[in-house]
Amino acid sequence: MNIPIAERMNRIGTETAFAVSLEAAEMAQQGVKIYPFHLGDMNIITPSNVMEAAIEAMKKGKTGYCPTAGIPELRTAVAKAVGAARGLELGADNVSIQPGGKPTIGKFIMVAMNPGDKVLYPNPGYPIYESQIEFHGGVGLPYGYKESRDGFVLDMEAIHKGVKAGAKILIYNNYQNPTGASSPKEEMKELASLAVKHDLFVLADEAYFEIRYSGAPVSIASLPGMAERTVILYTFSKRFAMTGWRLGAAVGPAKFIDYISKINVNDESCSNHFIQYGALAGLQGSSEGPNRILAILKERRDVLVDLLNAIPGLRCFKPEATFYVFPNVTVPMDRKGVKDVEEFRKLCLRETGVSFCTRRHFGRPLPGETQQYLRFAYSGIDVPLIKEGMKKLTDFLR
Amino acid sequence: MNIPIAERMNRIGTETAFAVSLEAAEMAQQGVKIYPFHLGDMNIITPSNVMEAAIEAMKKGKTGYCPTAGIPELRTAVAKAVGAARGLELGADNVSIQPGGKPTIGKFIMVAMNPGDKVLYPNPGYPIYESQIEFHGGVGLPYGYKESRDGFVLDMEAIHKGVKAGAKILIYNNYQNPTGASSPKEEMKELASLAVKHDLFVLADEAYFEIRYSGAPVSIASLPGMAERTVILYTFSKRFAMTGWRLGAAVGPAKFIDYISKINVNDESCSNHFIQYGALAGLQGSSEGPNRILAILKERRDVLVDLLNAIPGLRCFKPEATFYVFPNVTVPMDRKGVKDVEEFRKLCLRETGVSFCTRRHFGRPLPGETQQYLRFAYSGIDVPLIKEGMKKLTDFLR
Repeated sequence: MNIPIAERMNRIGTETAFAVSLEAAEMAQQGVKIYPFHLGDMNIITPSNVMEAAIEAMKKGKTGYCPTAGIPELRTAVAKAVGAARGLELGADNVSIQPGGKPTIGKFIMVAMNPGDKVLYPNPGYPIYESQIEFHGGVGLPYGYKESRDGFVLDMEAIHKGVKAGAKILIYNNYQNPTGASSPKEEMKELASLAVKHDLFVLADEAYFEIRYSGAPVSIASLPGMAERTVILYTFSKRFAMTGWRLGAAVGPAKFIDYISKINVNDESCSNHFIQYGALAGLQGSSEGPNRILAILKERRDVLVDLLNAIPGLRCFKPEATFYVFPNVTVPMDRKGVKDVEEFRKLCLRETGVSFCTRRHFGRPLPGETQQYLRFAYSGIDVPLIKEGMKKLTDFLR
Repeated sequence: MNIPIAERMNRIGTETAFAVSLEAAEMAQQGVKIYPFHLGDMNIITPSNVMEAAIEAMKKGKTGYCPTAGIPELRTAVAKAVGAARGLELGADNVSIQPGGKPTIGKFIMVAMNPGDKVLYPNPGYPIYESQIEFHGGVGLPYGYKESRDGFVLDMEAIHKGVKAGAKILIYNNYQNPTGASSPKEEMKELASLAVKHDLFVLADEAYFEIRYSGAPVSIASLPGMAERTVILYTFSKRFAMTGWRLGAAVGPAKFIDYISKINVNDESCSNHFIQYGALAGLQGSSEGPNRILAILKERRDVLVDLLNAIPGLRCFKPEATFYVFPNVTVPMDRKGVKDVEEFRKLCLRETGVSFCTRRHFGRPLPGETQQYLRFAYSGIDVPLIKEGMKKLTDFLR
């Protein structure tokens, strides 16, 4: 028979970065040594107190269903942790536990967005925003980033234009993937004023909020008038190196969170029961594990950024957050005579084994883009391999 | 601000059975002894070989992401197990691992159903079918069950009517929740012929396929012309007492399964990584654990059904599958002078502590329904409590 595929499936996107993983894996199978900078995954193991608590809960029989919004203890602990770090007063009813950070994106959109609604989202950015907006019948309005002296800043002009065009929803990913951008104070203030003035509802993707190497992170939800209009995407994935556990939360106004939990009932009943006790131990226990993870990542960042900037003509900021860097390779590409950034990626992979993503894996290029960027992740590669890979890449690009 | 709630949220349903859990929990807190027959959850612990393999994988660092459709070994093992039990030739590309059995329902509907499409679904039945159909803009066409001499059978007239009305999709839950119905051979054959003749695409919810106490289970996917038009909902929840682990799979035509996995990328990236090794050990290991679970459930069924049938005027089949029974209480309700089945439920709960669901928790009553039914689950209650509770209920209803 002709298998029926609904029309909406023409509008769903994917993470094209997975194709890079596949390419690298195929080359590795052929015996090529690969330097994996393409992964957003972590090669650091979960802290042992988290593992032990999850195992204990499993053995104690926490193997049946739990409430759809999560075990009450974890909802309360997340409310406390998220609230304390952001200066917000939150309770358990502001938290819906999710099987990962990512599920909050689709559920937020299903609850907040009607077909035809306009949604501002970052591009370059995590490709799932655009995919979920379009999948559920919305109209995505992309906004970009610009290089300032100190790092990437929002293209506020594009955001103002989107608001004028009638955007109802803003997706904002401070501590950003892929650029590593952290909003300066004034930028975040301007964004919040705009949201309040034009009554925007906001998804604050704060997946990398705790992956910050200096200074305290700031949430847009803590700015005046914002808590009532902001849903925070929270995840255990990065801070506790729990990417493969799939555990996170949607945090926001209780009424909205109730609707998110109603989708939980329909989609997956609840998140895995016993791992929630692991996460609880992580939040309530010593910060030794998370600190160790941060220290490892910081060393990698420092080594990588210095080596990248040693490549003639390459320009790379040193972000204070995330585990990504987004070097500008316009000059090295010119020197190699390559015009297409994906062609450049494949050339480097083939010639050096150094595997990374490009700007292209984070959205369709916007009109007027002239600079070329790569995205290096350092969450899945150790310092010796960083050094070895960067030597090969530097030799090739010199 | 006025929090935006999209129009589609008016069309999403829920599992009203959760409200019964809440009522029972509140009474228990007040010191009332509760006999929990309302739970679809299990009070049986997961087999130890499954737990040990999951723990080993966790400690070995399977804590990062895995492929979106699941680890290849588990996809292959599910293909083999599902195929062998149904006489189908399946490979890894026919399987997409999901965080539970339930996620297959919503994803199947999103891939197969356009807004306005008509979908046949069982009522009484698992309430999530109707909810997901309407949430994603489809038109649900409910079909009921009728009492035969040996058990519940499909209301084929309603199904024929639905096909004439233009149904494109059929949801079929053999080994059914809540009735416990198993299709007789001829019934399943008639259903399959209809599906082939009218080119219906089928979701076969086989969550209880392995919870069968005598005889071999049969899948509609194994009938002529059906494999190419059927997606099977598979779950680890019941056979391995893994309800709270949240692990299952969608099994069907590779092209369709690819689309399901594309939704995985967008919704949750992948299912928990290390628990997949636990499930793999379950499928590949000894069947001691599953057999023990079945033996426990069978004893409970036998005790419960006999005691139910000792209540004057009550009529209860003894299903060969699932862990539910669906007694007809029309006569006992008349005797008590209660017209509304929910009122009857609350009365029994208040007077005896025996807690169960009713037909009403499994869909809106269909026109012409005259008989009254309850649903008792015996997956979460031990034999001594079954006996004690049934004595109280019998005394009250005598």
